[in-house]
Amino acid sequence: MVARVQAVADAGETAPGGVRQAILEMARREIAEHGCSGASVRSIARAAEVDPRLVRHYYGSRENLLWNALSGDRDPLELAARLLRQSASTIGRRAAAAVFAPWEDPATADLQRARMAASLEGTEAVGRLESEFVSQLLGTIAASVSPDRPRLRAALAATHLTGATVCRYLAGGPLAEMDLGELVRSTGAALQRLLTGPLPEQG
Amino acid sequence: MVARVQAVADAGETAPGGVRQAILEMARREIAEHGCSGASVRSIARAAEVDPRLVRHYYGSRENLLWNALSGDRDPLELAARLLRQSASTIGRRAAAAVFAPWEDPATADLQRARMAASLEGTEAVGRLESEFVSQLLGTIAASVSPDRPRLRAALAATHLTGATVCRYLAGGPLAEMDLGELVRSTGAALQRLLTGPLPEQG
Repeated sequence: MVARVQAVADAGETAPGGVRQAILEMARREIAEHGCSGASVRSIARAAEVDPRLVRHYYGSRENLLWNALSGDRDPLELAARLLRQSASTIGRRAAAAVFAPWEDPATADLQRARMAASLEGTEAVGRLESEFVSQLLGTIAASVSPDRPRLRAALAATHLTGATVCRYLAGGPLAEMDLGELVRSTGAALQRLLTGPLPEQG
Repeated sequence: MVARVQAVADAGETAPGGVRQAILEMARREIAEHGCSGASVRSIARAAEVDPRLVRHYYGSRENLLWNALSGDRDPLELAARLLRQSASTIGRRAAAAVFAPWEDPATADLQRARMAASLEGTEAVGRLESEFVSQLLGTIAASVSPDRPRLRAALAATHLTGATVCRYLAGGPLAEMDLGELVRSTGAALQRLLTGPLPEQG
């Protein structure tokens, strides 16, 4: 990766899009490994083997760089609308598959890891993106398919999906070795119950 | 906290247990905030406002210091045995309450956060403690109460509990504001289903 960044950087102004993309990729890796608080313009420039001034030239402030690195290309409301076009009886499984897909794809896994790391920090202005994504996605779905208490159901479904993501992609352990199809079935069944099944009695 | 550590450190050899405990507390805070990879003897000594040589005097290697800071006082197998002494029909709720309790207690919350941070790093020798705790606890319970596939059920229950813990104590959002009793009921009901209810069909 570093060699690729260097090659692109050497090409200079002939491939500014390439350098910009490479800086974003390195920013995601730095955030994934050290959190937003540990990802400085200097550390990102060092990882990308470019001058920090080039990073500032393209992205301005550190805050703006981190925001760009963490911004996803998926709109949770649009994804929810797409999932709601099919039967509500299988939405748990389809939502689980849609959330795991970008984690399983090497081209987008670093973005997911960076967003999760920012979310787990819980304090930064650019944080909470991953949890907001999941909450918005499942909040929209729950508002449509849940018989009662959709906000509670969305929060519990987001909880389960967050746990599955953390256990499979961050913490290792049994979920990391599980067949993806089985993970989608198990997680999807749990989501389906949390979104549409009986809730424990209140009180 | 820093003032307290300083006061204890000033007392020197008259209160070595106090200094040692204070160093452990600062180590937990450093690990919780920066992960094991960001918690150096130097940074821990600085946080505790003591000489790094004092840290090495008490704990020897950095690895040993981190291990001591992350070691819990609860044995998951002993806790599982205690929970299994009561009815299997309420074990989900009681297991959830037992896992959340040390997170809710300010005296032990930093230890929990440090163990979770180490676990999320996924690579360190001292990591995975939190996930191992949950897996061992739920693995022992599932082996006793589950009708079939106890290892899968324990992994899924651990997933849900990890998600609830991350969402309530790390990422913020709706679960952070939820009443603890309601969280225990909701999470307990999900655990009960994952441990003893029907599994999605294989295929």
